[in-house]
Amino acid sequence: MIAAFRTGPISKNRLEAFTDGVIAIVVTLLALELKLPEGLHGDAAIWKALEQAAPAAAAWVVSFLFVLVLWVNHHFFIASLRHADRGLLWLNGLFLLCVTATPFPTALAGAYPGSTPPLFLISLSMGATSLMFAIMRFYASFVSKLTREYLTRADLKRAMAMSAIAPALYMLSAFMAFIWKPGSLILLTFVPAVFFLRSPALPPAEA
Amino acid sequence: MIAAFRTGPISKNRLEAFTDGVIAIVVTLLALELKLPEGLHGDAAIWKALEQAAPAAAAWVVSFLFVLVLWVNHHFFIASLRHADRGLLWLNGLFLLCVTATPFPTALAGAYPGSTPPLFLISLSMGATSLMFAIMRFYASFVSKLTREYLTRADLKRAMAMSAIAPALYMLSAFMAFIWKPGSLILLTFVPAVFFLRSPALPPAEA
Amino acid sequence: MIAAFRTGPISKNRLEAFTDGVIAIVVTLLALELKLPEGLHGDAAIWKALEQAAPAAAAWVVSFLFVLVLWVNHHFFIASLRHADRGLLWLNGLFLLCVTATPFPTALAGAYPGSTPPLFLISLSMGATSLMFAIMRFYASFVSKLTREYLTRADLKRAMAMSAIAPALYMLSAFMAFIWKPGSLILLTFVPAVFFLRSPALPPAEA
Amino acid sequence: MIAAFRTGPISKNRLEAFTDGVIAIVVTLLALELKLPEGLHGDAAIWKALEQAAPAAAAWVVSFLFVLVLWVNHHFFIASLRHADRGLLWLNGLFLLCVTATPFPTALAGAYPGSTPPLFLISLSMGATSLMFAIMRFYASFVSKLTREYLTRADLKRAMAMSAIAPALYMLSAFMAFIWKPGSLILLTFVPAVFFLRSPALPPAEA
Repeated sequence: MIAAFRTGPISKNRLEAFTDGVIAIVVTLLALELKLPEGLHGDAAIWKALEQAAPAAAAWVVSFLFVLVLWVNHHFFIASLRHADRGLLWLNGLFLLCVTATPFPTALAGAYPGSTPPLFLISLSMGATSLMFAIMRFYASFVSKLTREYLTRADLKRAMAMSAIAPALYMLSAFMAFIWKPGSLILLTFVPAVFFLRSPALPPAEA
Repeated sequence: MIAAFRTGPISKNRLEAFTDGVIAIVVTLLALELKLPEGLHGDAAIWKALEQAAPAAAAWVVSFLFVLVLWVNHHFFIASLRHADRGLLWLNGLFLLCVTATPFPTALAGAYPGSTPPLFLISLSMGATSLMFAIMRFYASFVSKLTREYLTRADLKRAMAMSAIAPALYMLSAFMAFIWKPGSLILLTFVPAVFFLRSPALPPAEA
Repeated sequence: MIAAFRTGPISKNRLEAFTDGVIAIVVTLLALELKLPEGLHGDAAIWKALEQAAPAAAAWVVSFLFVLVLWVNHHFFIASLRHADRGLLWLNGLFLLCVTATPFPTALAGAYPGSTPPLFLISLSMGATSLMFAIMRFYASFVSKLTREYLTRADLKRAMAMSAIAPALYMLSAFMAFIWKPGSLILLTFVPAVFFLRSPALPPAEA
Repeated sequence: MIAAFRTGPISKNRLEAFTDGVIAIVVTLLALELKLPEGLHGDAAIWKALEQAAPAAAAWVVSFLFVLVLWVNHHFFIASLRHADRGLLWLNGLFLLCVTATPFPTALAGAYPGSTPPLFLISLSMGATSLMFAIMRFYASFVSKLTREYLTRADLKRAMAMSAIAPALYMLSAFMAFIWKPGSLILLTFVPAVFFLRSPALPPAEA
């Protein structure tokens, strides 16, 4: 009896609630990396300290948009499934492990804006996160076949192709951090922007 | 087939859950800016340290009420919509970007209570947040037309006018920070108070 | 048309979700007040540092149980209502303002375990929180009359009486902090224990 | 009338939402223990600092997987119940008290990777958490009999046996911390791995 349910269907509600919770906390914590300048005297000193926080603020906005793109894509992706299963819970958990790593390289990028290590690490972290997302989509689309009936195999393949591009671009960005830093910076801001403008490939059928 | 769904209706559930999560974390983090006085000896020293935390406590309460007003208004606003769409998810995300910025200027105002920069920054941050809210309402009411049928165009216009007042008052407060600081302080406490007392313009139809 | 909805019924879902979010974050942050001892050398030094963290750990457990009692009571209280209204959203918001204040006096009590100020402040904070809860119950039971039909006036009065006891005991504890500290400590651990053992007065009717 | 509801059925929704919230925050905070190296100059110094963060990163991943296993098991466990009751709310609260303790020993293990105290404390903390989970399952299965009808007594006993193994192994790991540290490390990584690979004993019946 138990064996029959092992890979049986599981409601999507808590998977969504858990993911929403983790992503909500991550985006909020990103802003906490804006460290308060302490022990200053006079307005001029405070203005100057705020100016010096500009790279940290830029890193915060880029990371926020990256995580927001993940959330919107996760929303559309889960909506395209009939239900979850045990494998999806685990893969989603590993995806969230990568998401929760985002604040660390973001803070590093804010603290050492011109250096190679933060650029490399932020590319690596975003690359791993989008790779886990692609693996999760692959599992749901072609391994466990959890997607809704109205989606054709061509739809699923197109969505898969699009999900595979992001990790490839982030890996490129990680290499760029060693060779030509501006190239890495351009890629890091360009990838979320593309997903921001373009529609997710798999839309939800529900209202 | 996919193209047809690109701007199709999306369930409001996760948008609400994500927003509730972010706002819940932001209001809780605001209280964390009350820094613990360390290394004190004797009750008298602790009482004195608590007294000196008064401006930070005041900044905390004002920011809490500001975010609470946002939450209540967001609640009424989303309840007035039939469903969400992709554009609303993005605009709501940018709105949350502004909301998560709130703890930083609040902490700055607590640390440097008499200075211009924190007053300016807190006004700017609250102004940007309420502006994003107004843009989101404009998009839902007049661009994507997501509002429920029982709301007339006059209802929507009145709600829009009210949503446009808050950013204007915060911009005024940002200028006041340079000219007459008490004026800025009065506006910062006055705006949430008004929304606290007055009803949101668009009520939910559901029980 | 708008006026008619001003105090109209509002769904309880987001009020519950928002409250659950805030309380979940507060209980998690309480444990963060357990500060990591840094720069130690050798096991003996680490054991000693952990021993010295005992008062902070005790303060954490007491505060956790206090907030847990709040959550269970909130759960039963909201379940006893037919629906929410605008006034309840605001009162619940002020209740949450008090809840989010809990980590600060808890950390203070952990840092200065034998002193009067933390005992006074923790009593004051818990007193204010349970007072706001009592006000919220009063509003829902007797002002806005939001309770379910199967609850008699006698039921509501009994629940109200019980909700009024907690703030009174915490106020007593706040005075005790100045006169006889053990009395304050006893009350602070005793009140959650009573509510832990005793049933909430107003049960939910739903399964 | 009230007495009749005292141990009456309670909806599972808020128990799930509260637990999801707490666990989401705990897994996100675990990553925050990765402290940012400050005041460094040059790429070489940053690379070196990142290398030294390796034990903290390892502790983070192990703790994340531990909490993820808890979340998946909690998901399956609650899905196997017809409804909650007051006793389950309290036991779940005590379970969450243990869960929120996880970041502290994790940070300690990251800061003092070769020492006995963190290994002992992390084993003790994970042991207490999985013991509370086992107690909660015992209460729901055999005391309050909240499990769904399709589950036989043999199913419940098998699930109970499996839930009892984890605390025993963690207690063993706590003793190993004093005698043979690698044994403790092996157990700490082995237990989540087993639950990761093996199915939970009680599956949900719902889709």
